[in-house]
Amino acid sequence: MPDKRLPFDGTRVLADLNTLRGIGAYKTGVHKPTFSQAHMRSVEWLVQRLSEAGLTGAIDGIGNVIGISAKSGPKLLAGSHLESQNYAGWLDGPLGVVYALEAARVINPDLSTNGAVEVAAWCDEEGHFGSFLGSRSYVGAITEADIDTARDRSGGKTMREALRDVGLAGRPRTMAERGRYIGYLEAHIEQGRTLESSGLAIGVVTSIVGIWQYRITFSGEQNHAGTTRMDVRKDAGVALARFCVAIDDRFPELSGPRTVWTTGRIALDPGAPSIIPGQAEMLFQIRDDDPGVIDRLENQLRSMAAEVSAHGRCGVAVERLRTGAPAMMDVRFQQTIEAASLAFAGGRSIRMPSGAGHDAQVLATIMPAGMLFVPSIGGISHHWSENTDDADIVTGAQVFVETSRRLLAG
Amino acid sequence: MPDKRLPFDGTRVLADLNTLRGIGAYKTGVHKPTFSQAHMRSVEWLVQRLSEAGLTGAIDGIGNVIGISAKSGPKLLAGSHLESQNYAGWLDGPLGVVYALEAARVINPDLSTNGAVEVAAWCDEEGHFGSFLGSRSYVGAITEADIDTARDRSGGKTMREALRDVGLAGRPRTMAERGRYIGYLEAHIEQGRTLESSGLAIGVVTSIVGIWQYRITFSGEQNHAGTTRMDVRKDAGVALARFCVAIDDRFPELSGPRTVWTTGRIALDPGAPSIIPGQAEMLFQIRDDDPGVIDRLENQLRSMAAEVSAHGRCGVAVERLRTGAPAMMDVRFQQTIEAASLAFAGGRSIRMPSGAGHDAQVLATIMPAGMLFVPSIGGISHHWSENTDDADIVTGAQVFVETSRRLLAG
Repeated sequence: MPDKRLPFDGTRVLADLNTLRGIGAYKTGVHKPTFSQAHMRSVEWLVQRLSEAGLTGAIDGIGNVIGISAKSGPKLLAGSHLESQNYAGWLDGPLGVVYALEAARVINPDLSTNGAVEVAAWCDEEGHFGSFLGSRSYVGAITEADIDTARDRSGGKTMREALRDVGLAGRPRTMAERGRYIGYLEAHIEQGRTLESSGLAIGVVTSIVGIWQYRITFSGEQNHAGTTRMDVRKDAGVALARFCVAIDDRFPELSGPRTVWTTGRIALDPGAPSIIPGQAEMLFQIRDDDPGVIDRLENQLRSMAAEVSAHGRCGVAVERLRTGAPAMMDVRFQQTIEAASLAFAGGRSIRMPSGAGHDAQVLATIMPAGMLFVPSIGGISHHWSENTDDADIVTGAQVFVETSRRLLAG
Repeated sequence: MPDKRLPFDGTRVLADLNTLRGIGAYKTGVHKPTFSQAHMRSVEWLVQRLSEAGLTGAIDGIGNVIGISAKSGPKLLAGSHLESQNYAGWLDGPLGVVYALEAARVINPDLSTNGAVEVAAWCDEEGHFGSFLGSRSYVGAITEADIDTARDRSGGKTMREALRDVGLAGRPRTMAERGRYIGYLEAHIEQGRTLESSGLAIGVVTSIVGIWQYRITFSGEQNHAGTTRMDVRKDAGVALARFCVAIDDRFPELSGPRTVWTTGRIALDPGAPSIIPGQAEMLFQIRDDDPGVIDRLENQLRSMAAEVSAHGRCGVAVERLRTGAPAMMDVRFQQTIEAASLAFAGGRSIRMPSGAGHDAQVLATIMPAGMLFVPSIGGISHHWSENTDDADIVTGAQVFVETSRRLLAG
């Protein structure tokens, strides 16, 4: 029997990524919000490519595509997402989908490898309508009621309206067939500078950090900014600023080596130039893969709040809005990516946690999962200027295909 | 010739104020935005009362009312405003208008006093459409083009639409007749706690502070809140918080005894929980009646900004949006209010600057001006629960009428 294996083709990988960049192009990046015309055309493009690669897949009732192989033997699920943040980069998502497609194209026709790669594009990883709605639907973590209440965060349609408008209303949602897969593999751009700054090609993801989100509220006394003397003020905005600075001063000694914390939004109430703010609020986030570190930091937050409430001019309340669920990547997947990096990237790899969330953390709840990163130029992410060297893209694809092959070989 | 003087009537003052409170009532306060139905009904009520008091006055083309007396002799202009902040107090404005009306009712028929009190209600002191548009129109500081561009700040109509809807479009605007008045007298609630906390009845205003307004902008680098390590971040929000705290730490030793400063609004850009803010902005205000103090403080602001820009992670730019124009109250007016307080308030008065802006600062640009304050319960202002003791309201009215009489007597 002749060897029908198609050789790995880096040029084809780059061409596919550039084709996807051309759909919904914005400067050197793309604008493909979930269920936009550009997003749907990208998904339809994938359905065509899956069919050409011998995989059967259609868009399901939440916008996911999973290309199924008829080949016997073990199956590896691989993929990422096709929609983008607004006016964002061309690789965030498509890279992992095209790598998975290339792995299927190279491995599935190769009869010397038992088993097949099946390709997934998860809908709305970027969270226009919710949090990982596509992959969470697949693992059974989303109800119809969740879809009923989902709404475009930029103030647009409900998810039901969006699904109807793109012709997906009423389609069934594909659920994971338990036991079908040896695991899930995903590639992504790093979105940071770790690889670039060390001249490395591959990040072997050890864990995906959890995100703990807090609302911290300051209660003072709203008053006239002209007639209220400084010594009697209860300025909630000043209390907030002091709290931010105290966090930044005290967190470093309590945090782990990779802990990050961010105040992403601040609002003063009423927010008028001539009124002393009586209320103030900050959205505060901590990320780590170690809940023990978070415990220490959250205790610190709460004791600082109690201290200010007891001895300061304003009350402070700390409310946890979201509890992180760090996901550990499978050890065999990590070892396999590392071995493939040794073979195809000169061993220029490093083990590292992912500070960003990915669909792999959702898939990890039902099967072994692994991720690999390729370098991001300047660490730029969620911006149209996001980019990766073509050579790094091709190296990453080779490592991805080789990893897939070795995982299936067992 | 019989003495036609009507005696001062504190009950009538309280009754008039309560009648105005009944128009556009909200809880124990009022909701009378400029050109609302409740505002216009209040102005029409005043026109009726002016007529009964022998004054001739109509609503002019910008919503001002000035009641003119036919009596010979010197004239004192007195008044305040009738519209309110949204869902705000019943006395902020109407107190000064009713005091002026009472002074006219008591003094003008009194033939033993040469001259008359003329009563003004200035439109839009509360700034729904602009900044002191009514009194500035009267002193000649507003052009038709200014009115063309004025718009309700709460996102409503243009001023032209509002004027048309209340039937004032095309009416002439009354301009000050130079030389007609010996000066302008205004009463107002204090809006602070100085009088209440010292058991005083009358504040003799020495000056109305100027307001210097700044926009302070911080430029860092927007990035992913999960993948960007703490040591490489350029977080504009953290830079802003540190700047706020530095202001609060360094300003006290450079400020005057009554200087106040306020950060009324903070915005982080893009303001998302998972994005490190690349830009941040604060609206910052300083009030004082001494430009020398402001010079010191503004220099401090600019040198702090230069210091952070040179040695910190973010750039800081300080832009002055508004330059204060403190208004000094006329010394003879101050002395006269003080003398009247000795006669009718047991001398329980104190000289003090006004931290809030008032129409008197506009009138002071073309004639001598004076102001007196009555106590605010709890210092509450710009809130429906704003209030003043009835006894303090009546005492203030007596002092106001007596001050007017003495000013006219010369």
